[in-house]
Amino acid sequence: MSEETGPLADYMKRLGENARAAARAMGAAAPADKKAALRAAAKEIAAHKDDILTANAGDLAAAAREARPPAFIDRMALDDARIDGICAALDDIAALDDPVGGIVKAWTRPNGLKIERVRTPIGVVAVIYESRPNVTVDAAAIAVMAGNAVILRGGSECLATSKALFDGFARGMRACGLPPHAAQFVETPDRAAVGAILAGLDGNVDLVIPRGGKSLVARVQAEARAPVLSHLDGICHVYLDAQADTDKATAVAVNAKMRRPGVCGAAETLLIDRAALAALWPPVARALRAAGCELRGDAAVRALDPDVAPATEEDFHTEYLAPILSVAAVDGVDGAIAHIARYSSGHTESIVTENREAAARFIAGVDSAIVMHNASTQFADGGEFGLGAEIGIATGRLHARGPVGVEELTTYKNVVRGDGQIRP
Amino acid sequence: MSEETGPLADYMKRLGENARAAARAMGAAAPADKKAALRAAAKEIAAHKDDILTANAGDLAAAAREARPPAFIDRMALDDARIDGICAALDDIAALDDPVGGIVKAWTRPNGLKIERVRTPIGVVAVIYESRPNVTVDAAAIAVMAGNAVILRGGSECLATSKALFDGFARGMRACGLPPHAAQFVETPDRAAVGAILAGLDGNVDLVIPRGGKSLVARVQAEARAPVLSHLDGICHVYLDAQADTDKATAVAVNAKMRRPGVCGAAETLLIDRAALAALWPPVARALRAAGCELRGDAAVRALDPDVAPATEEDFHTEYLAPILSVAAVDGVDGAIAHIARYSSGHTESIVTENREAAARFIAGVDSAIVMHNASTQFADGGEFGLGAEIGIATGRLHARGPVGVEELTTYKNVVRGDGQIRP
Repeated sequence: MSEETGPLADYMKRLGENARAAARAMGAAAPADKKAALRAAAKEIAAHKDDILTANAGDLAAAAREARPPAFIDRMALDDARIDGICAALDDIAALDDPVGGIVKAWTRPNGLKIERVRTPIGVVAVIYESRPNVTVDAAAIAVMAGNAVILRGGSECLATSKALFDGFARGMRACGLPPHAAQFVETPDRAAVGAILAGLDGNVDLVIPRGGKSLVARVQAEARAPVLSHLDGICHVYLDAQADTDKATAVAVNAKMRRPGVCGAAETLLIDRAALAALWPPVARALRAAGCELRGDAAVRALDPDVAPATEEDFHTEYLAPILSVAAVDGVDGAIAHIARYSSGHTESIVTENREAAARFIAGVDSAIVMHNASTQFADGGEFGLGAEIGIATGRLHARGPVGVEELTTYKNVVRGDGQIRP
Repeated sequence: MSEETGPLADYMKRLGENARAAARAMGAAAPADKKAALRAAAKEIAAHKDDILTANAGDLAAAAREARPPAFIDRMALDDARIDGICAALDDIAALDDPVGGIVKAWTRPNGLKIERVRTPIGVVAVIYESRPNVTVDAAAIAVMAGNAVILRGGSECLATSKALFDGFARGMRACGLPPHAAQFVETPDRAAVGAILAGLDGNVDLVIPRGGKSLVARVQAEARAPVLSHLDGICHVYLDAQADTDKATAVAVNAKMRRPGVCGAAETLLIDRAALAALWPPVARALRAAGCELRGDAAVRALDPDVAPATEEDFHTEYLAPILSVAAVDGVDGAIAHIARYSSGHTESIVTENREAAARFIAGVDSAIVMHNASTQFADGGEFGLGAEIGIATGRLHARGPVGVEELTTYKNVVRGDGQIRP
């Protein structure tokens, strides 16, 4: 950024400086003030529903003129109920424990030094998202509750809606005396703003969180100068062990794929222990077909069930986000672990078995952000984890893995208390 | 790397693939096997002292021919006692608790799902270092104890010495049945190997740790595609509050600067509460001068003590790593916090005061990796923290702040145990 000039560069530079200053003040904000601000924001948004819906109508009309696909328009659309949902989420986040100041760990050294690792905010969090306007408020609330300053950059197609929601959020913050720049919204649709954020705003961005499609996430992962918490793919697996309970196997397989095939925690591949394939396949396949799932299998599955289409190597690398499931037979737990190591995106995998030893081996051997036993992969969600809310799911290896909520947006500092100790 | 070709590219690519495969196996290594391997490595290194000293003599002769500075040659030089120290460090690391498998946190959801965050290794750690050959063994041992695979790239000036030490380490690993590629040493002095590691070896590097001078760390921070744990500067501050005990203030100031002026935790700036400057300065200055410290002060300090040289703006941004101390008067705790926010590198700061409220305000308001009360900044060290050993100090904000030891080289996965739960 330091080499860029012009009005946008100046605007973004100021945004970064404002965020850094606000972050310092936010670190000392009292829990009650943060909670009050989020509740006030909910009231402000509810009180300005009409303005928000008017802004949204404008964005929707423009999207219709540009012939955006229906799914895209649905993601953008707000109505009374959706705005109520946004306000309820704010109240939920306000009800969470404030993690800041919590003691992660404490110990005393033989020389009498007392060491504590104390939770602190991360600092400045930048959230880059696409067309879902609720992300404006959810992301801001989670970041602020953890004591961070947040910079929000929403998709240009939904700019007016997001801005109207943001204005309500900001009024709530101001009403409760939080620093005015604790949450900032990038008001320009200029795409260079994203580049500026990814370049780090002169070191004033500590963390970048992308929310949206694969191309956005890939760009952020490739270009961001600050650490990124994100997931690119959710190629999740369900493994049915030879000692799976057939009813649980059927229910988990169907739910993991079909409850909502388009979420990142949806299963894309079903692995079945070769030793139990003949017994498990008929009931599982019947239920999947009854739910409307297209099946693509390897040679072993097709030998048993010729109605299954052939799965290619590419299928096992594919996140369908659709009612399609690739199926492969594997040689027991070790075969499942090997398949997952090769094809998984490190998001979520689940074993169905009544054999505790097999479950333990799967859990130890699968190195994904979330590993489950006898549960649907669709539980891979911050709300379902009890985090209260999530700003995303992380499949990287450092800092936080899996759902990222308020606590995951904190870090720690080391506090050392002595009585005049000097080092010999 | 995928676009690079040629023997080096092939060699580095294979190194990455080998490391990834070894990391998978290391994740399941038993604590006893890892401990036995480190102890066996210590025995192997001790048994091959002569080979190591011969290799070191060759490296030292080459360094002398190239007229390297004495401090550089001293960092390279091994003798009997230094090799004994390397072996003792291995035994110390082997005596640490194995963090892998530890439960970070556990809770149960209303639907009966039991969620645990379980410590796991990070995966593949690359350590890029300069001329200290002991880093070869220390870094390998810490990384391996945490269940990681490690790729070691040492400075070319000390390649033969590091290789001789590495060979001993590797024999110990093999003797105890750990995967042969759990620790790999880059055997070529070709500088392009560093570029290949920073490019990420096709996604086979999960973390990069640089150990060495500022130019190395800056390059790694700028170029690494994987997360980095590091610190660029250690511009550490000691703040003497108006209510400091004079003896403690004197002892901490002298120790923080002069015990070893060249370490990253050495104080570079002394801040003194303006309200107590006249009382505190004479005894503190006397002790610092008696210890051989050069003093550079701001106008307030020089008004009191004209023998103090003037400190420029640049001084307060400088990590001297030498017996030089910049001194400034500040307006109480808030003045100290503001000065530190402006000039600190986020490493370590300490307040000396008998006023608990002032200490609490300083600890809350200073956002550095380590914040101390009545203790010397020279305690900023993994050994002094009781971590057993450290692979470095991190001043970034994510994952780990301050000393990075075995536990900080782990991450977690989310383990979810159910009884067939599906998501409504």
